[in-house]
Amino acid sequence: MSEPLRIALAGLGTVGGGVVRLIETNAELIARRAGRPIVITAISARNRGKNRGFDMARYAWEDDMVILGEREDVDVVVELVGGADGPALALARTTFEAGKALVTANKAMVANHGIELASRAEAAKTAFKFEAAVAGGIPVIKGLKEGAAANYIHRVYGILNGTCNYILSTMEDTGRDFADVLAEAQAKGFAEADPSFDIDGIDAAHKLAILSSIAFGTAVDFPGVTITGIRRLLAADIAQADALGYYIRLIGMAETEVDAEGKRRLFQRVHPHLVHRDHPLAHVDGATNAVVAEGNFVGRLLFQGAGAGDGPTASAVVADLIDIARGDIGAPFSIPAAELDMAARADTGHRTGKAYLRFTVADRPGTLAEIAAAMRDAGVSIESLIQKGRVEIDGEERVLVALVTHHGPESAIAKALDLLEGSPSLAEAPLVMHILEE
Amino acid sequence: MSEPLRIALAGLGTVGGGVVRLIETNAELIARRAGRPIVITAISARNRGKNRGFDMARYAWEDDMVILGEREDVDVVVELVGGADGPALALARTTFEAGKALVTANKAMVANHGIELASRAEAAKTAFKFEAAVAGGIPVIKGLKEGAAANYIHRVYGILNGTCNYILSTMEDTGRDFADVLAEAQAKGFAEADPSFDIDGIDAAHKLAILSSIAFGTAVDFPGVTITGIRRLLAADIAQADALGYYIRLIGMAETEVDAEGKRRLFQRVHPHLVHRDHPLAHVDGATNAVVAEGNFVGRLLFQGAGAGDGPTASAVVADLIDIARGDIGAPFSIPAAELDMAARADTGHRTGKAYLRFTVADRPGTLAEIAAAMRDAGVSIESLIQKGRVEIDGEERVLVALVTHHGPESAIAKALDLLEGSPSLAEAPLVMHILEE
Repeated sequence: MSEPLRIALAGLGTVGGGVVRLIETNAELIARRAGRPIVITAISARNRGKNRGFDMARYAWEDDMVILGEREDVDVVVELVGGADGPALALARTTFEAGKALVTANKAMVANHGIELASRAEAAKTAFKFEAAVAGGIPVIKGLKEGAAANYIHRVYGILNGTCNYILSTMEDTGRDFADVLAEAQAKGFAEADPSFDIDGIDAAHKLAILSSIAFGTAVDFPGVTITGIRRLLAADIAQADALGYYIRLIGMAETEVDAEGKRRLFQRVHPHLVHRDHPLAHVDGATNAVVAEGNFVGRLLFQGAGAGDGPTASAVVADLIDIARGDIGAPFSIPAAELDMAARADTGHRTGKAYLRFTVADRPGTLAEIAAAMRDAGVSIESLIQKGRVEIDGEERVLVALVTHHGPESAIAKALDLLEGSPSLAEAPLVMHILEE
Repeated sequence: MSEPLRIALAGLGTVGGGVVRLIETNAELIARRAGRPIVITAISARNRGKNRGFDMARYAWEDDMVILGEREDVDVVVELVGGADGPALALARTTFEAGKALVTANKAMVANHGIELASRAEAAKTAFKFEAAVAGGIPVIKGLKEGAAANYIHRVYGILNGTCNYILSTMEDTGRDFADVLAEAQAKGFAEADPSFDIDGIDAAHKLAILSSIAFGTAVDFPGVTITGIRRLLAADIAQADALGYYIRLIGMAETEVDAEGKRRLFQRVHPHLVHRDHPLAHVDGATNAVVAEGNFVGRLLFQGAGAGDGPTASAVVADLIDIARGDIGAPFSIPAAELDMAARADTGHRTGKAYLRFTVADRPGTLAEIAAAMRDAGVSIESLIQKGRVEIDGEERVLVALVTHHGPESAIAKALDLLEGSPSLAEAPLVMHILEE
């Protein structure tokens, strides 16, 4: 058996601890699969004193994690610190500078600096891998880069945030409202004290931006993702969707399209969607993630599994390490960074589909007629309209009106909402959810 | 860009045609992903004269496909002829003898001779890849070998035969009987004129034997798979399962277990199962395949997609070619063939679970009491028992009695069936289906 692959670990939180545990527990299997042992030589974390349940004295310690990238006894740095910039980015740059490989679970860094880092890794002829950054333990980056490598992918979409999916499926099962379920999820440790990254869709958008680059061969464009989170969803929306045969899921979706001048454009959106009961994503419950990719030869592929947690994330990190141990240093984004297409962003105006709209209106005559008139004037055709019972919002009694449109242009819906803008009948901005096409 | 990877194609049927079309259609993408072009140099098939929809004159022709493995202008042979032995096996051996790589979609050959061929490939330090042999376009071999590489897998199971799944989900949707749906599937070309390989579970067993070797690091043991097909299923069974909240799916399942002496044993079974509506496999419809693997760190992973067809199968073949073009010649079964564990077969006697039993009985008093007594005497506890209406079988009027057992030992069910063996009350052998555990 060849020389061991020597790794340094930056960050010893939940995932870092999982990586140590996995490398120690499955050492023999990992060595057989990798063709050589994978050993930890050095570690670094914010707080040296903390008890992490393993014997830290076995590994060299660095107070300054950036030094890990320069150590003679390290072949690969595993970065599990997080944050788009700061020490994580400094460590990544130092690591490539020293000609060493980097494995990371840091979606924010890859979404914001992935192309720069890929260029550095390619220049240094070393590996830069981030399977754990998207959908936790699910080998979806490998699935797209290698498993579906022969295909032009035209669409990739999925459930990319476990916290949101846990909240949505719990709302579904219990009929409870968003705030209530979020508070419980926070108490149980399933959601962060500051939940914004998850529930406002930013985490899902990071993952989507990475996925679309790999699927389409386009440069990562995180700022190009249109993002809506799940904060405004009510139990009444879930119940309404259910009555129509749908579940609500936060879907990240990316497509490429060709514009009138024949130029390829990239569409990326994170948005709560109504997903029909017959669609496989409708049955993805709890903190599970799932990604669908559609290729021109393979058709529709679905990858599903645990999207977070120490074990699954560590599984993805160590899979990357095994690839590196085997000598795989392929282009981080599947094709060389310099060849990635700087695709322009798609204009959403010409997109078509069905949508769910929910209005919170004052309880007085004429509001329904006003909404219906705006729809008519904007050319939105209504498939079904339901006036729900009364709800109390901020101490005022309100009425919920939900409707589902026929298949039509999204621009018409935008126009209808423009017509209603500022109407005293509406107690708050309408909630729009797209209905996932089969 | 480096030298092209030159391939020879043996077999130009549906899948062979798909591979030609894919390599021609997506040539530019494939070259970018592979780092070099993939080109076909030589071809062979049974019938040279047949029109295959592409210009065969572009490629050198061999009447004897085995010669493909010896040609100077070939780096990789793609074998799409099929059959466990015969020309396919001769070609595989010749190819490795000549130090060239082999890619195949031939599940029968891999299930029967995979270890021998892997040893030959390893000795020649060349690649032997067969992603297309299991679950068509789904990158499940890659998913297990690489994506979940860091995990001890304890169970792998799934829907491995699209023809059976098409028949079962059509029976479900239409209420029609097995023979009727099979005849229609044959007329439409979804099932072979001789459907035995599919509906008797042999095809699924080939795939399962390959999957378990890769998942567990055990030697391929196709003869060790216990196989029951779907031929005896009635519309009444589907309806009965549905009333209880289950769908019926042909499931291939493999597990490792440790026996009383601490020795690892391999359990492999292809069998129609009742799958609860909440399980993701219950919603896999039509010709789709799906594989679930459970690892000690990653938890449950699900891979789903098209299990057959020219496009998806070609996608898997070319994914293997791209890996080879990138220089990946890892062990065919994830660890070297000589290190694969020759695990003994598990004894099924101590397995426990719930089961569905259906009896076809003569329409006379006392038969139900006889069945119930046999269950009691064998220690099988009945959860629910349903006496269904009359059916006519071979011109005789019969009564169907279906029951679901409580969780208990499979050995008790076998004993009950032994007690009933030869009873004049039973018009045919009872039908047993296991209920898939969550």
